[in-house]
Amino acid sequence: MALKTGDQGQAAMNGLKDKVLTLQTMNQCVRKVEYAVRGPIVVRALELEQELRQGAKKPFTEVVRANIGDAQAMGQRPITFMRQVLALCVHPELLSSPHFPEDAKRRAERILQACGGHSLGAYSVSSGIQLVREDVAQYIQRRDGGIPSDPNNIFLSTGASDAIVTVLKLLVAGEGRTRTGVLIPIPQYPLYSATLAELDAVQVDYYLDEERAWALDVAELRRALQEARDRCCPRVLCVINPGNPTGQVQTRECIEDVIRLAFEERLFLLADEVYQDNVYAEGSLFHSFKKVLTELGPPYSTHQELASFHSTSKGYMGECGFRGGYVEVVNMDPEVQQQMQKLMSVRLCPPVAGQALLDMVVSPPGPSDPSFAQFQAEKRAVLSELAAKAKLTEQIFNEAPGIRCNPVQGAMYSFPRVQLPPRAVQHAQELGMAPDMFFCMRLLEETGICVVPGSGFGQREGTYHFRMTILPPMEKLRPLLEKLRQFHSKFTQEYA
Amino acid sequence: MALKTGDQGQAAMNGLKDKVLTLQTMNQCVRKVEYAVRGPIVVRALELEQELRQGAKKPFTEVVRANIGDAQAMGQRPITFMRQVLALCVHPELLSSPHFPEDAKRRAERILQACGGHSLGAYSVSSGIQLVREDVAQYIQRRDGGIPSDPNNIFLSTGASDAIVTVLKLLVAGEGRTRTGVLIPIPQYPLYSATLAELDAVQVDYYLDEERAWALDVAELRRALQEARDRCCPRVLCVINPGNPTGQVQTRECIEDVIRLAFEERLFLLADEVYQDNVYAEGSLFHSFKKVLTELGPPYSTHQELASFHSTSKGYMGECGFRGGYVEVVNMDPEVQQQMQKLMSVRLCPPVAGQALLDMVVSPPGPSDPSFAQFQAEKRAVLSELAAKAKLTEQIFNEAPGIRCNPVQGAMYSFPRVQLPPRAVQHAQELGMAPDMFFCMRLLEETGICVVPGSGFGQREGTYHFRMTILPPMEKLRPLLEKLRQFHSKFTQEYA
Repeated sequence: MALKTGDQGQAAMNGLKDKVLTLQTMNQCVRKVEYAVRGPIVVRALELEQELRQGAKKPFTEVVRANIGDAQAMGQRPITFMRQVLALCVHPELLSSPHFPEDAKRRAERILQACGGHSLGAYSVSSGIQLVREDVAQYIQRRDGGIPSDPNNIFLSTGASDAIVTVLKLLVAGEGRTRTGVLIPIPQYPLYSATLAELDAVQVDYYLDEERAWALDVAELRRALQEARDRCCPRVLCVINPGNPTGQVQTRECIEDVIRLAFEERLFLLADEVYQDNVYAEGSLFHSFKKVLTELGPPYSTHQELASFHSTSKGYMGECGFRGGYVEVVNMDPEVQQQMQKLMSVRLCPPVAGQALLDMVVSPPGPSDPSFAQFQAEKRAVLSELAAKAKLTEQIFNEAPGIRCNPVQGAMYSFPRVQLPPRAVQHAQELGMAPDMFFCMRLLEETGICVVPGSGFGQREGTYHFRMTILPPMEKLRPLLEKLRQFHSKFTQEYA
Repeated sequence: MALKTGDQGQAAMNGLKDKVLTLQTMNQCVRKVEYAVRGPIVVRALELEQELRQGAKKPFTEVVRANIGDAQAMGQRPITFMRQVLALCVHPELLSSPHFPEDAKRRAERILQACGGHSLGAYSVSSGIQLVREDVAQYIQRRDGGIPSDPNNIFLSTGASDAIVTVLKLLVAGEGRTRTGVLIPIPQYPLYSATLAELDAVQVDYYLDEERAWALDVAELRRALQEARDRCCPRVLCVINPGNPTGQVQTRECIEDVIRLAFEERLFLLADEVYQDNVYAEGSLFHSFKKVLTELGPPYSTHQELASFHSTSKGYMGECGFRGGYVEVVNMDPEVQQQMQKLMSVRLCPPVAGQALLDMVVSPPGPSDPSFAQFQAEKRAVLSELAAKAKLTEQIFNEAPGIRCNPVQGAMYSFPRVQLPPRAVQHAQELGMAPDMFFCMRLLEETGICVVPGSGFGQREGTYHFRMTILPPMEKLRPLLEKLRQFHSKFTQEYA
């Protein structure tokens, strides 16, 4: 409907104008953003749930959302102490109730004392409540065997995602071949690729080694770096440990190698350590990048720039909805740190209830506190069940011909590799779909199991995977895994 | 410290390398961001508080933070019903307590029913809990005299700021002279200038008319638009109503004119309506852009693109810390709307406690509910005190020679104009400071009153203002205003 200029007024009255904001005129970087964890497969899962509610007949009675690390949605109960303290903070009248333990009351009073107007309803300073940042610093110090942490280097955030985006935002500069390149693992958590697309930074893939339980290989990092130098200026290296979606836990030696490489190659390190409490495999231990970097001594300890992220959403508490998190920066230029503070101030502050929750995560009840025993019991119960589910998942998948699953050493996901018959691959391609998306869609339609195709995280060309959380309760997980195995076998036969 | 290449290894060991991330290498758009509401004056206020705590002698005993619309930090009490429901949601064991009214319990159960795993700890869908979006839609429909609102056009957010940034992000495209221009009022709330700097969009200023109580003048909009067309592609018009920092409430006629202009000139409308419950002046009424646009009929009602923002942080509840908010989009291209949904999904979801709070804001207790009377009484008390403080502020300022204050018709701020003696202006310029920053800094140092200089919001060249909230409790506000008046008089004499 082309219009002659001058005719605009008339066109206006006829309502013939195009919209101001269309796919063509919008921010094209945003258009390129993809986020598989909540992508088309999840949209379809929501539709199926709706159809089930409306009485539609399906080969299943419920949709199981194993697509996202959302523990409480899967039935995990919140940690009692945390919710008691939060309720007291939200509604301080309860402080006079006899139904709350004394340590919960003391804790709530301590938090409220540190809030503007003694209320969760006031803004905090933009980097987060001072008291909470001090408690985070002490937590880090304990975690890292006494290596000091400075509350001024800690910034609370709206979940870890918010902090990751903020730090990446600071780092993206340059044009053309000087544009910031960011090394990310493949497979990766798609927050990274999405944010890089949005910021118009250059994504530089390094592949994790599936044959060695998704280990990070420094030679592969060097390869990726080398190739990237032709098209961008690589300045950032992202590491996810424990791995998402891949569940590996990095060895200390590997972390040392990564730090040395980052230093030599002048890369700012981003350590996504939100699963630091989720380590299950025997012999696996979480080593923080901060600790290893410090223990390597100068020049690493004095010069290597690092940002480490943590969250209230994972671990044993799984409090995703409160959007709590933090970043600790190490060796960051103080002037840049001021810029970060300023940037955060524009969004005023992270949710204060999430900050309060974070305080309990980093500073749980001590042995002499009345809530200690229950807290520890609840925490242990969650973590030991997760460990059992991690093992079960690996085991059942590996009994299935055509499925191969690395050990789930940590985090909350299995990322098994599935063999798809060539005819299925071809059929998917005819439909314009990634083959593993086709597989996952069929799985969803026939079993109600919602998992995310490997293509949403990245994988070696010609390999196919999916990410499935280990979060469904034990009594559901086993039949789920069996169902999945059977479906794969049926699918393989169908396209044989 | 220039290094020869090849010497890198040695340099590394000597620790001579520059940092990867410095002021020079960082994202230069971020460097340009300014946010006065939490700028240098607030940093100094925090230092002064610290000094007071450490026993330093000052000409005042406390710092009064009148810089930010943070009601509860100023002592305003939360609305009881809201906190009761939230506490019940946070800690559902309380549902069996006899100390909560029945309607609060029903409300909490209704919200929890709509949450994943019946818990605030689960992620919600990225656009927000369906139930809450339905309640928001019903609220808008009631507010706008029955004009329908579709929950699918409502996106919950982390405070209104988050939604404003998201919509602006969609709109910024093009390069050089085709880069998106965004019209913002001057004076403005600096979230706008900060976000435009960060997104590298072109800020196009239109001036509010101080002589007519900060009215928006469509002729001035046209002037700004005309001039801007030489350097960018103006595609967005932001309006803040009731005004921040200026406190004006737009007339219906003015809104109609703005909508007609936006339509003719092909501008996407952003209506920042977070102060919709904060209207005090006799004869002033809040008219939503959605309502006026709809009542104008086609082609406006059918074509004009609009995003309207609201928040839990202002109004009578002042729940800033929970970071609740929403945007309603009108006539947005459905494909773009999907892109917006996708973009929001990368950050998973807004804080769920903030979503729950928003539900209570948009759907307060009804006349037959046990909590109705108390809720209404608390709401009325806050709003009538705000109205009285708005009046008092205007009155006391206007009794002062050299200060002139427009009526505070709405919102939470006065934005008085102050005459500064030429010698003070000159002195400030010698110090490299905006003259009103100099005034406000001196005010802070000598009285402990923290207000934000007009230069942080923008103002006509050669005029000076400051923004001061009307939030301090009545018994503090009057002496505060008197002190401020006296300081101005002393300051004027000093530089006479």
